[in-house]
Amino acid sequence: MTDLIENAAGRLVPTVVNGRAVAPYQGVDGYRPRGRHAAPPIRSCSEFPRDGDKRAPDLVEALRRAGLRDGMTIGSHHHFRDGDRLMAQVFAAATELGVRDLVWLPTATFACHEPLIEHLESGLIRHIEGSLNGPLGRYASRGSMRGLGVLRSHGGRYRALQDGDVRVDIAVIAAPAADSFGNASGVHGPAACGPLGFALADSEYAEHVIVVTDTLVPFPCTPWHIAGNRVDQVVVVDQVGDPARIVSGTTQLTRSPDRLLIAEHAARFVRDAGLIRPGFSFQAGAGGTSLAFTAFVAEHMRAAGITARFIRGGSTRVLVELLEQGLTDYLLDGQAFDLEGVRSMREHPDRHLATSPFTSYNFHGKGNFASLLDFAVLGATEVDLDFNANVVTHSDGWLLHGIGGWQDALFAKCTILTVPSFRDRVPVIRDRVTTLCGPGELIDVVVTERGVAVNPRRADLHAALVDSGLPLRTLAEIKAEVDAICGGAPDAPRLGDEIVAAVTWVDGTVIDGVRRVVAE
Amino acid sequence: MTDLIENAAGRLVPTVVNGRAVAPYQGVDGYRPRGRHAAPPIRSCSEFPRDGDKRAPDLVEALRRAGLRDGMTIGSHHHFRDGDRLMAQVFAAATELGVRDLVWLPTATFACHEPLIEHLESGLIRHIEGSLNGPLGRYASRGSMRGLGVLRSHGGRYRALQDGDVRVDIAVIAAPAADSFGNASGVHGPAACGPLGFALADSEYAEHVIVVTDTLVPFPCTPWHIAGNRVDQVVVVDQVGDPARIVSGTTQLTRSPDRLLIAEHAARFVRDAGLIRPGFSFQAGAGGTSLAFTAFVAEHMRAAGITARFIRGGSTRVLVELLEQGLTDYLLDGQAFDLEGVRSMREHPDRHLATSPFTSYNFHGKGNFASLLDFAVLGATEVDLDFNANVVTHSDGWLLHGIGGWQDALFAKCTILTVPSFRDRVPVIRDRVTTLCGPGELIDVVVTERGVAVNPRRADLHAALVDSGLPLRTLAEIKAEVDAICGGAPDAPRLGDEIVAAVTWVDGTVIDGVRRVVAE
Repeated sequence: MTDLIENAAGRLVPTVVNGRAVAPYQGVDGYRPRGRHAAPPIRSCSEFPRDGDKRAPDLVEALRRAGLRDGMTIGSHHHFRDGDRLMAQVFAAATELGVRDLVWLPTATFACHEPLIEHLESGLIRHIEGSLNGPLGRYASRGSMRGLGVLRSHGGRYRALQDGDVRVDIAVIAAPAADSFGNASGVHGPAACGPLGFALADSEYAEHVIVVTDTLVPFPCTPWHIAGNRVDQVVVVDQVGDPARIVSGTTQLTRSPDRLLIAEHAARFVRDAGLIRPGFSFQAGAGGTSLAFTAFVAEHMRAAGITARFIRGGSTRVLVELLEQGLTDYLLDGQAFDLEGVRSMREHPDRHLATSPFTSYNFHGKGNFASLLDFAVLGATEVDLDFNANVVTHSDGWLLHGIGGWQDALFAKCTILTVPSFRDRVPVIRDRVTTLCGPGELIDVVVTERGVAVNPRRADLHAALVDSGLPLRTLAEIKAEVDAICGGAPDAPRLGDEIVAAVTWVDGTVIDGVRRVVAE
Repeated sequence: MTDLIENAAGRLVPTVVNGRAVAPYQGVDGYRPRGRHAAPPIRSCSEFPRDGDKRAPDLVEALRRAGLRDGMTIGSHHHFRDGDRLMAQVFAAATELGVRDLVWLPTATFACHEPLIEHLESGLIRHIEGSLNGPLGRYASRGSMRGLGVLRSHGGRYRALQDGDVRVDIAVIAAPAADSFGNASGVHGPAACGPLGFALADSEYAEHVIVVTDTLVPFPCTPWHIAGNRVDQVVVVDQVGDPARIVSGTTQLTRSPDRLLIAEHAARFVRDAGLIRPGFSFQAGAGGTSLAFTAFVAEHMRAAGITARFIRGGSTRVLVELLEQGLTDYLLDGQAFDLEGVRSMREHPDRHLATSPFTSYNFHGKGNFASLLDFAVLGATEVDLDFNANVVTHSDGWLLHGIGGWQDALFAKCTILTVPSFRDRVPVIRDRVTTLCGPGELIDVVVTERGVAVNPRRADLHAALVDSGLPLRTLAEIKAEVDAICGGAPDAPRLGDEIVAAVTWVDGTVIDGVRRVVAE
């Protein structure tokens, strides 16, 4: 077992992950990188057909031509979410080629990937570096995966490829539409999902890039979210994704009275703190509480006659309404969460700006968009009294969620966590979070249905809100009340000593380790 | 003096250029690159202001912060053409900092840069690697420049930065509009010039990137042709370019009867060769003959009821008419040549596709757009009987033109040179071109006012055209006729032994050397 050392957040973390030395977390601005970006091999047009037609007959042949062999790393993206139909085909093709010990580096996994556990069992896949949601998370939590899980945020994964922490040997980029040159777009075809930014790093840094689509269009496929100039091969298959599970037809606001109250508190907070001002910006997300929050913010905007400069999507019906009503100049989209979002991208190409983990989240860039936002609203599984938060494990220790863009978005000028004070009678505010994912110094406000807690580091916000009528309380006050309701803090999870996954910070250092869960 | 060796085209070329070993030209597909792309240093958001405001107070301070020192290489672009107002300011600022021996790596130079000769004289600039048009070309031709000129095509310059042949220490990117984060756009502001693709490589590969604008807009500046995430500093100056000399208000078709005849012959050629077919594509350019050609092609398209899939710009009034009349689905623009082009880019953001030397021309990519075109129409200063052509020197040896995208565009499925048979009583068709820029195997047709010559390698085209009524002739026939008119072939230029500039092929090998001109 790997050595553990205590990092700057007081967490014991591994110093070696899957054979690679890693640095411990050193504080938000403590780690300064050295060296140069990773770089793919120089290629030549002489190697490619002059007419630009890069099609291979099928996935097996494409993987064979890509030189697939034991131990290689396969990159993929999650724009199709729970509707992904491609990776099962890819790993079936790899099985045909008789390889073993692959590393899968997805941008995220979903419940639809549960069947891929058979490939972890068979030895085809050695381990997964990427979010381990639901069934794959349980599998890793039990200690069943051979390698360590490596949890990275969206920006962190871009950074890892850029910095050369990991190398993708073969990138498989599922495209809702593509031309035979490899230009790939996410806004056309039955699997339309919005821009393909999560696959950008793979296209830029992988040794070999394969675009797979079910909708081949004549050159040029536009808007190309992936440039065909970075693509080695194109494969056409019957279906890359299940439209019904990629995007929902309509995105629903929460109807839970508690969640509505949280959304309303959060919206009043940003209004009363003076954050809704001409030309402001924010991001909220696509969950029911977030959508309700955005709708409340829109009401405050209309009441005050204020418009935003930009809102960061993924686009939803709610955000499209704001755009079409002139309440924001732009939507900056990393993806689309519903069909209205996709429609609007096609109809307003100059007001939906396609973004990516490179533009929005890469911490080893020359700045990124996330820190320009006036406020960001995020969730969490747990928060501690110092505002540190967890998004990957539950209080029972099970690893059930990826980080997504959560860590990256913490850099907004005002970061607000909207959380219920308890879930299933388990309190959300803890003395110590089970897994540390984000340092409290980046979290400014925690909004629950029982009160709004402002981080003491933000005396400015506290001063602005003290006469607002909002139920301002300390986290300790809310915690005491909730612990009493729930019958005390929950039992500590039963965890083994073994680390099953490393949680990386946005700069590539290790902020925490996830331990094996001993029993169900 | 550097050693010379004979390359695959039979030209004597240097083996060392400005201290760097270079390979001789080895045929169109003969050279296969090895190694990996160049890579810029890893940076961190911790080094940049969280609010994204990267403004420096002025150019001197920006260059100081960038660490400007003796011998550094400065990259710049030519989107402002003869209206560039920036580089004079940049080199004046460098003079204030007291540095020497800079290398200037522009994407092209224009007559407006003649005053910069003082900096070559003073020692501030050691030499220029980039096109040496007009006065700077004469300066180099006389042997006055300390280093060797290195002439690269647009694609060749992108490739050189990508492959690490040259490194830009400080890129200065003139932006018609930008935000304080560094996102830069070419379609807004008084100096609007179309997309900024010529500066893309500098933004991607330079050690340090400075965006300079006279039109600061709120974040996000859109469409961003240069991503602020690659930008270190932003400087606001009074004027980056002279609008009247950046784009013309209207682009004029030729009125010369001979040029009109050439345009008409070329358009009949592509029609009768069957190249105007549903979904076809082409590029022509913005000169008077090219515009007339495009207008004739449009007539043939209307007559046949045929539309194009795409036309490669720079956009012009003529191309915008085709787009707005539905004669093409898309315009693919590397730049804009007139104000109508810029207007249309703003009004039809989904049908003008911003391209760059990376997408269109980079020969060390996984294919590029240039080779997908059904036909391309280009010019030349000289053509020999084997269809080899020259675009950089005149027959008297003076280096007066850059390569532009000319070499890159030769890869179209049918490449047509439209040239007058003589200029100022100097024949254009020669036994041997003064400088070899493009190999005859890539040039399919030469159209003059005295006849149309089809490359014998293209028996297919010859067969298709033989009954067309076009005046098909051999180059030798046209040459004999023109030599008689002009009183024989012109005198050989009076050249010294010294190489003053190297002409690189798209793959970085050296296809020819340009020699010193002995006398005026």
